[in-house]
Amino acid sequence: MSAPIEFYFDFSSPYSYLASEQIEPLGARYGRVVDYRPVLLGATFKVSGLQPLVDVPLKGEYSKRDFDRSARFAAVPFVLPQPFPIATVGAARAYLWLKDSDPQRATAFLHAAFRAYFVRGRNLSENPVLMDVLRQVGVDPEPALQAIQQPAIKEQLRAQVDAAVARGVFGAPFLFVDGEPFWGHDRLPQIERWLATGPF
Amino acid sequence: MSAPIEFYFDFSSPYSYLASEQIEPLGARYGRVVDYRPVLLGATFKVSGLQPLVDVPLKGEYSKRDFDRSARFAAVPFVLPQPFPIATVGAARAYLWLKDSDPQRATAFLHAAFRAYFVRGRNLSENPVLMDVLRQVGVDPEPALQAIQQPAIKEQLRAQVDAAVARGVFGAPFLFVDGEPFWGHDRLPQIERWLATGPF
Repeated sequence: MSAPIEFYFDFSSPYSYLASEQIEPLGARYGRVVDYRPVLLGATFKVSGLQPLVDVPLKGEYSKRDFDRSARFAAVPFVLPQPFPIATVGAARAYLWLKDSDPQRATAFLHAAFRAYFVRGRNLSENPVLMDVLRQVGVDPEPALQAIQQPAIKEQLRAQVDAAVARGVFGAPFLFVDGEPFWGHDRLPQIERWLATGPF
Repeated sequence: MSAPIEFYFDFSSPYSYLASEQIEPLGARYGRVVDYRPVLLGATFKVSGLQPLVDVPLKGEYSKRDFDRSARFAAVPFVLPQPFPIATVGAARAYLWLKDSDPQRATAFLHAAFRAYFVRGRNLSENPVLMDVLRQVGVDPEPALQAIQQPAIKEQLRAQVDAAVARGVFGAPFLFVDGEPFWGHDRLPQIERWLATGPF
């Protein structure tokens, strides 16, 4: 088994969601597992000077069309939620907290959370929604919600986001394969080539 | 013959160059010709608030790597030129001037100009280079250079750039197929699907 595919994501990123629906089967075809790592786009924007896609004149309107079309192209169910984007720090902490004790359940939570927001339009920044998603993957939501209020998990997420930025992560999804950086859902074809042939 | 593929480009855009090497054969497979239309990214940046890719912290460094890798992925020769980016208003005017009288030669000029800059590293913003490229496609460079100093051609380019922005063009390459907007070299697979199946 070769090194895992490192997959940086934000729960509010449509292209992260699309890629999350495709990367595991893609990796599996080449004997790779996926190591999901949360980032917060708000933090990367501070470093890059970028702003949320939908706030950019002209590009924002195009992006909404491209989210939908890219989802249809990938045959992944998608409905742009309202509100969009949302704060994802709570969901990111919950993912991280789960990952420490039960990585497989953390991955189930990741997919359930993405789908709650981008398929059913449920606002993941609200605690009741987050609790529903936790329940859905068999996690007792009360202790989970208490855990993610603790300084330790807050600091852990902050440190991981800082480490991601230090590594050059400026957006999401942002993937590393054997140390090679790939930004965007639309780089999956290049990732597949890399997995198949090695460096090209 | 269905409607042409409208292809907005800037001579200083690596992804425009990559797409320009692929779009004609792609279109031809589906009975489409390509209508190339110059824009000036400086003008679109003013509206969108965006800035040159390589100036964005983190993203700039990644982009240089991605230009090279995307070129190899597409099997298109590419060497990031120095200086980069450059002013392309002269080349854009020359393209437009040629297109009015001899569209086929204009397309030959477009490819020769892109390759001069992105394969051989020749600075297309310098008149002697522009003249070489014009000569290369059989155009007497002296009258061409005089023509592109005339107010008429300057105004024509300005009007076309304004029209592009009014249509939502915020970057390059930016393509329309049957009115559907596609931004970026990495949308060629979606364009191919559209050409093959119609709206999806």
